[in-house]
Amino acid sequence: MGLQQRPSLLLTQGDPAGIGPELSLRAWLERDAASLPAFGVVGDPGHLDRVAKRYGWDVPIVAVEPDQIRAAFSHALPVVPLSAPVSAEPGKPDPAHAASVIESIGTAVRLVRAGSAAAVVTNPIAKHVLYEAGFRHPGHTEFLAALAAEGGPETYHPVMMLWSEPLAVVPVTVHIPLADVPAALTTDLIVLTGRIVARELRQRFGVENPRLALAGLNPHAGESGAMGTEDESVIVPAADILRSEGIDVTGPLSADTMFHARARSRYDAALAMYHDQALIPIKTIAFDEAVNVTLGLPFVRTSPDHGTAFDIAGKGIARPDSLMAALKLAARLTSP
Amino acid sequence: MGLQQRPSLLLTQGDPAGIGPELSLRAWLERDAASLPAFGVVGDPGHLDRVAKRYGWDVPIVAVEPDQIRAAFSHALPVVPLSAPVSAEPGKPDPAHAASVIESIGTAVRLVRAGSAAAVVTNPIAKHVLYEAGFRHPGHTEFLAALAAEGGPETYHPVMMLWSEPLAVVPVTVHIPLADVPAALTTDLIVLTGRIVARELRQRFGVENPRLALAGLNPHAGESGAMGTEDESVIVPAADILRSEGIDVTGPLSADTMFHARARSRYDAALAMYHDQALIPIKTIAFDEAVNVTLGLPFVRTSPDHGTAFDIAGKGIARPDSLMAALKLAARLTSP
Repeated sequence: MGLQQRPSLLLTQGDPAGIGPELSLRAWLERDAASLPAFGVVGDPGHLDRVAKRYGWDVPIVAVEPDQIRAAFSHALPVVPLSAPVSAEPGKPDPAHAASVIESIGTAVRLVRAGSAAAVVTNPIAKHVLYEAGFRHPGHTEFLAALAAEGGPETYHPVMMLWSEPLAVVPVTVHIPLADVPAALTTDLIVLTGRIVARELRQRFGVENPRLALAGLNPHAGESGAMGTEDESVIVPAADILRSEGIDVTGPLSADTMFHARARSRYDAALAMYHDQALIPIKTIAFDEAVNVTLGLPFVRTSPDHGTAFDIAGKGIARPDSLMAALKLAARLTSP
Repeated sequence: MGLQQRPSLLLTQGDPAGIGPELSLRAWLERDAASLPAFGVVGDPGHLDRVAKRYGWDVPIVAVEPDQIRAAFSHALPVVPLSAPVSAEPGKPDPAHAASVIESIGTAVRLVRAGSAAAVVTNPIAKHVLYEAGFRHPGHTEFLAALAAEGGPETYHPVMMLWSEPLAVVPVTVHIPLADVPAALTTDLIVLTGRIVARELRQRFGVENPRLALAGLNPHAGESGAMGTEDESVIVPAADILRSEGIDVTGPLSADTMFHARARSRYDAALAMYHDQALIPIKTIAFDEAVNVTLGLPFVRTSPDHGTAFDIAGKGIARPDSLMAALKLAARLTSP
């Protein structure tokens, strides 16, 4: 290598029996048409080569070091090799794949923490497959937070943002039963989430004065207590605290009337109180393009907003739109 | 009158201090451009005339009997007069208006029940104003159901549908705190709602084999019980019962992925389990055009999907889109 190259994006393998491998190949094939940033996969070159041949796709695979990704990307899909080969049949998840899934994520995080890569983009994993192999983290994002904290004194509170051009949403509570939401929703949690969102909109998204909109929990944001008390007792105090810290906050707003085009133009990110309140509006208007961004980590991590899709893996019909959007957003968030 | 005329639509006055009067006038002004069906207001001709003059709008007002609406509509706004004049200042709600609000609704229902009108379209009312005047019904829709049941042996279970060209949704539970939803949601209630929706899609909307989609209550419809049990214990049995009755039902579906364009094409109406789950998607994609239709009544009732908007009443800026859509849908649902 001659000149020092700007670090590239690392794309994790994800579950090798899911749609991650074929989407990685398709994204590389679309690299010029979609103006994708250079990326390298942390995976097994042999497995990716077999998947490409299965579809008859002309994707040369080249094993590289991270600093060689940018130079190789134009003519081949660069792969930072795992320690062992991966053998997986599309659509057939197997706990035997877990080691490669976990190694890929760990390697990507270590490389980005060491400055050898710009950001981590993750392909989908299947938690239940990893659990069978002894994985102990509640999910992908929590695993990344644990890896980020390794060997240091800090801990991280990861915050999931779903981002698309027309709308960015952050669920304050995420993967819990709806019945548990009212108790899980605290003023502290909303404040902590709001601070992280405002900070990262400023630092990573380049929004000078981020405007946050808080959704109400109850219908019509509770109508002054007529339909539930949490909007007044939990969300209003959180809005007050965030405002006292200089953050531009509106709400709690009636959740049903805050996501249409005119309403969206009034904020940079919406904080929703639970999973579906955040994900229904963004997946309704930007189903194929929404990107998952993890805020609150000491590095940029994005991922496509879909799962392993074992049911269609190996058919070559999975759409790479969300993965490509995740690659582009990761590049945008880390551009100098 | 010569020939017997086909019954017309009746539009209730709504709160006379809200945006209802100005929207009624604007809809009449747009009658040709928007191809609106003939309608008459059940209200006070004098009050509507004063509102028109306030804006300098050229809307001749004519007091009529219901069977004269169709003949008068082309050259004047037909008004079926209330028993007393109404004096109201836009933006200034007053319990003194309650009697006219209630009389207008009652008269419209009696006329449609008697066959003198085709359907009822209601302008928005403010419940809290009516409560101060002694109104005892939980809401507009429940009042209509009570009026429908008057003097007869039947009772009616009104079901709220929000309808737009791209999407129709029905919340199974409606105006209750989010924390009360899991307990309020029963298999019986979902089945009762599903039956009414399927029946009226067939009878009024002309959908021969209605396809219903049931939303899950929990994130990802509970992921087989990993995030909440109600999807399996409450919604699955309801889907089974409806299916056993010959209704085409899918679900419980992950609520976040069932409202984008491709997903919507697979059903005629979505049953959501709570208010925001239904209203977020439709108001996100069809904010100005969504119409409220009450199913389960012995007549057609539609209404615009917004409130009295006292804050903008009298400014002439309220948009008549939803009221016009409500008038058109009422005509469509009652066309011979």
